[in-house]
Amino acid sequence: MTYCVGVLVEDGLVMIADTRTNAGLDNISTYRKLHMFNTPGERVMMLASAGNLSMTQSVLSMLREGVDDIEGETPPKLEDAATMFKAAQLVGRAIRRVREIEQAGFEAANLRMEVSFLFGGQIGDEPMRLFMIYSAGNFIECSREAPFLQIGEHKYGKPILDRAVTYETDLYDALKVGLVSMDSTMRSNLGVGLPIDIAVQRRGALDLEVNHRIEAGESYFHDLRERWSAALRAAHRAIPRPPYGPQR
Amino acid sequence: MTYCVGVLVEDGLVMIADTRTNAGLDNISTYRKLHMFNTPGERVMMLASAGNLSMTQSVLSMLREGVDDIEGETPPKLEDAATMFKAAQLVGRAIRRVREIEQAGFEAANLRMEVSFLFGGQIGDEPMRLFMIYSAGNFIECSREAPFLQIGEHKYGKPILDRAVTYETDLYDALKVGLVSMDSTMRSNLGVGLPIDIAVQRRGALDLEVNHRIEAGESYFHDLRERWSAALRAAHRAIPRPPYGPQR
Repeated sequence: MTYCVGVLVEDGLVMIADTRTNAGLDNISTYRKLHMFNTPGERVMMLASAGNLSMTQSVLSMLREGVDDIEGETPPKLEDAATMFKAAQLVGRAIRRVREIEQAGFEAANLRMEVSFLFGGQIGDEPMRLFMIYSAGNFIECSREAPFLQIGEHKYGKPILDRAVTYETDLYDALKVGLVSMDSTMRSNLGVGLPIDIAVQRRGALDLEVNHRIEAGESYFHDLRERWSAALRAAHRAIPRPPYGPQR
Repeated sequence: MTYCVGVLVEDGLVMIADTRTNAGLDNISTYRKLHMFNTPGERVMMLASAGNLSMTQSVLSMLREGVDDIEGETPPKLEDAATMFKAAQLVGRAIRRVREIEQAGFEAANLRMEVSFLFGGQIGDEPMRLFMIYSAGNFIECSREAPFLQIGEHKYGKPILDRAVTYETDLYDALKVGLVSMDSTMRSNLGVGLPIDIAVQRRGALDLEVNHRIEAGESYFHDLRERWSAALRAAHRAIPRPPYGPQR
């Protein structure tokens, strides 16, 4: 499984991704799922992936080498896209191209061609944007009203985001809430696990402010998990008992 | 959608079920999903249902009237089952019987025959038990290590149960945490909604201690939702900001 979340607030963009992959339940590995297309001073683009690992890796390679779906055209690369919208379109094209190449083999092996991506960043003076791109290559964009997007095992970590994140949330508070959301997911689904890759990009900065891997045992994240657990325990203890049943 | 949770702790059994059903997104109704088979002093059995409403209703009717899958046998009723295990087996038989009758029609209409049930209670001196019964009629039982079971839209409400419920949890604390779990689910999935049916059965009592419907606007549940929201906000605010990025 995978869990990735992107949060686009007034001050910038946060991306968080776990690194656990599994081919069957008994073949678990660590793979980076948060990928950077970073030209400092010009553009920062981040792509987080979920779904079939061979497909997402092929999409990534193709975005770096050029998407060769149109004969006679110089295959366009992600790093050359003029706007974030055109870049998201190119990610979609790459997904469709990989599907085209792999489909017969996947069908023969009865495998599902499911992938999804979070794609966010900023190019020059263009607005900072965050997209979710589906298996079919189509995509949606997050909005001020719904300033986060998730891929993979998204349900366990959604309640805290629903409650705690708005467009006005501070950038590092958004990172913090994203990490709480990741913690909730890891507790309820062992298929999502450490290490966790995190990145923070301030709006207009055109470079990453944070690009860090949280390893198992790292004290801040360990402390966040402990504090969150303790606070939840205290929170439900502080709620009065239900008034139903025999009065005690 | 549906969300039902059953918690079996040392002191007894709690069952909670929402009441929202939808046939398509634009046809939303309220139906009871928590059903009682209650003979005070002799047995209390509770059945919560999720999935295709026509199937779950047929299963219920059949359990009351008798499961007529074996020719020549007097169709057995749930109320006559000698043990909770035999009763759970009978629920499974009823599911398979309804599948048998409906399958051709469902296939012709390209509908999925998906149902699931939580089934819990106590008969005489037998142990109190809680089962989850699947579409195929097979079932699992909850254990001391995992003292709750969920059906329907289960992921949003699982993190708080994972953290807060153990076998030693007080019966009414289990009800309270179950209601918090229901609240989290309702916030993240509008297909799960009020009113909520709740029931509490103390171990050995052979009657329901609580059998109540929480309607919209009921003050205890409203207060629980407000307190939980406020506590979560306070909880994530109290966690220090991440130490990554420029030190401020």
